[in-house]
Amino acid sequence: MLNPQLKQGVNEISQKRDVRRRQMKLHEIGEDRLLDRLLSRPSVGKAVAIGPGDDCAIVKIRDRQNFLVLKTDCVVAGVHFLATANAVDVGWKAMMRPLSDFAATSAVPQFALITLIAPQQTTVEWVEELYRGVRRAAKRFKVSIVGGETSGTSGPAAISVSAVGFVEKDRCVSRGGGNAGDDLFVTGRLGGAMKRKHLQFVPRIAESRWLTKNFSVHAMMDLSDGLGADLPRLAKASRVGFTVETKNLPLTRGVKIDDAISEGEDYELLFAISPRERTRLQLEWRKKFRKLPLTRIGSLSQLSTFNSQPLPRGYVHFQQSV
Amino acid sequence: MLNPQLKQGVNEISQKRDVRRRQMKLHEIGEDRLLDRLLSRPSVGKAVAIGPGDDCAIVKIRDRQNFLVLKTDCVVAGVHFLATANAVDVGWKAMMRPLSDFAATSAVPQFALITLIAPQQTTVEWVEELYRGVRRAAKRFKVSIVGGETSGTSGPAAISVSAVGFVEKDRCVSRGGGNAGDDLFVTGRLGGAMKRKHLQFVPRIAESRWLTKNFSVHAMMDLSDGLGADLPRLAKASRVGFTVETKNLPLTRGVKIDDAISEGEDYELLFAISPRERTRLQLEWRKKFRKLPLTRIGSLSQLSTFNSQPLPRGYVHFQQSV
Repeated sequence: MLNPQLKQGVNEISQKRDVRRRQMKLHEIGEDRLLDRLLSRPSVGKAVAIGPGDDCAIVKIRDRQNFLVLKTDCVVAGVHFLATANAVDVGWKAMMRPLSDFAATSAVPQFALITLIAPQQTTVEWVEELYRGVRRAAKRFKVSIVGGETSGTSGPAAISVSAVGFVEKDRCVSRGGGNAGDDLFVTGRLGGAMKRKHLQFVPRIAESRWLTKNFSVHAMMDLSDGLGADLPRLAKASRVGFTVETKNLPLTRGVKIDDAISEGEDYELLFAISPRERTRLQLEWRKKFRKLPLTRIGSLSQLSTFNSQPLPRGYVHFQQSV
Repeated sequence: MLNPQLKQGVNEISQKRDVRRRQMKLHEIGEDRLLDRLLSRPSVGKAVAIGPGDDCAIVKIRDRQNFLVLKTDCVVAGVHFLATANAVDVGWKAMMRPLSDFAATSAVPQFALITLIAPQQTTVEWVEELYRGVRRAAKRFKVSIVGGETSGTSGPAAISVSAVGFVEKDRCVSRGGGNAGDDLFVTGRLGGAMKRKHLQFVPRIAESRWLTKNFSVHAMMDLSDGLGADLPRLAKASRVGFTVETKNLPLTRGVKIDDAISEGEDYELLFAISPRERTRLQLEWRKKFRKLPLTRIGSLSQLSTFNSQPLPRGYVHFQQSV
């Protein structure tokens, strides 16, 4: 048992640390850490199969074959798009961001709710263009927009989209199922998305659905913050390390490795699969998706190492999680 | 057939009007009109039983007994709460607003997704208090918080909550089922909510579930914009008029009629039910909900009139829709 005075001292130090922590500003702590802290206290019920922290929330409902899948995401002017960006593109991106998380889970999105928070001086034209982009993106994946909400603000515009859909219980993929020894694959090319692609990307739902229909995918996620931030999250959720052969990374033409793994907004799939499936996967992928590269970038391992290339500087996420 | 020149002239006038309309600012048109315009083009699929415009979206899924119910709502600093408001109260309100729409539909909320958009100088303490309020409200109705998203902004804080749940197909209530001759009832008292109640209200989910279990409720909604704005919406959706006996309105002590019907934020239920059920309803309600008044305020009719009291000035919504 602790000496009562010592115990009191420890408590005081702990309390002071807690006060300091609570007085910290949001820009002093990362989004991951804040969400971890807020969502760690379990307010999730027993119906929740995969809760906060993964790409989507997966919950059990009265349906023997399917889970219900939920995801919300937002874009804010000045953070996710420039105030001068084409409003159709902004609407497209607002809808496609949560749908990219559906791709990560191999789920089929069906319904969406849109919240628009916009300053009073916004023109009707801008809002109509925005919704045109939202509708066009929804139509691409046969998603029904079933509700909307608008509010004024004295700040920049923000669009929040919540998507709801389903995934077959035996095709649902999370970040957490990777095994040491699994191959790591990425779709498409990495880097350079900030120039244009981030406003016009197409979530890899078709590819993801094809993958889980034909292969046993152990773990998967979409690359929104860059491979350097996202791969450690997949590894951490799967409780394994990883090896990446950086010379194999499928870089967008003209983009350097450091930028390609840290810029983010690629919205490509990263997944782990048994090396026994490698040959068949590569062969059938080339037949099915002729224009989209599929690249084996490394593997999951017991140890966490990053081969043949120093870690890019300034990418704190990467180093923290390894 | 129109004379081609005349037709061209008509087209030009129509185009000019369209250009003027599109250059209007959001504060020049109401939220209802904007949402009507944006959501009127059907992007909803055949799975949608009740889409945009009602309190919740109601969709068909693989479940013989139940519909899936979806609703999103947001609160913005400076619009729905003062920057000085207690953060726990703000979180409570953010969660309870969409749940009040579940009460309107007689649905049971089960899952929620939270989006927090906050300036970088927000303290961790404020965010933690906010989430405490959100969690407390969710717990009250056994709602699982299954996902969250945070983003920075250079503007005021905004919290968007999307709720998902279920309603039995034979207990689902919309705004559109009222008949001429139906009694109109409201729960609780109207007016004065802006002082305090709007941050601490309890959605009438228990009351609504009891009502649809024991009675045939034809149409229902929650009063968020005030009876003067909301009742015409219910009447319009049901394609009937209404008569309100203003002397019967259950006013909060010290609140004038004009304010009680126009302030909003009451979050009480307004519903239409056959007068044949009146006596049994009033008797059983008093036994079940001793502390909560239930008041017959008027009835639905073929004609739209507002008895015994002039319309409150300045309440455009009310006059537009009558």
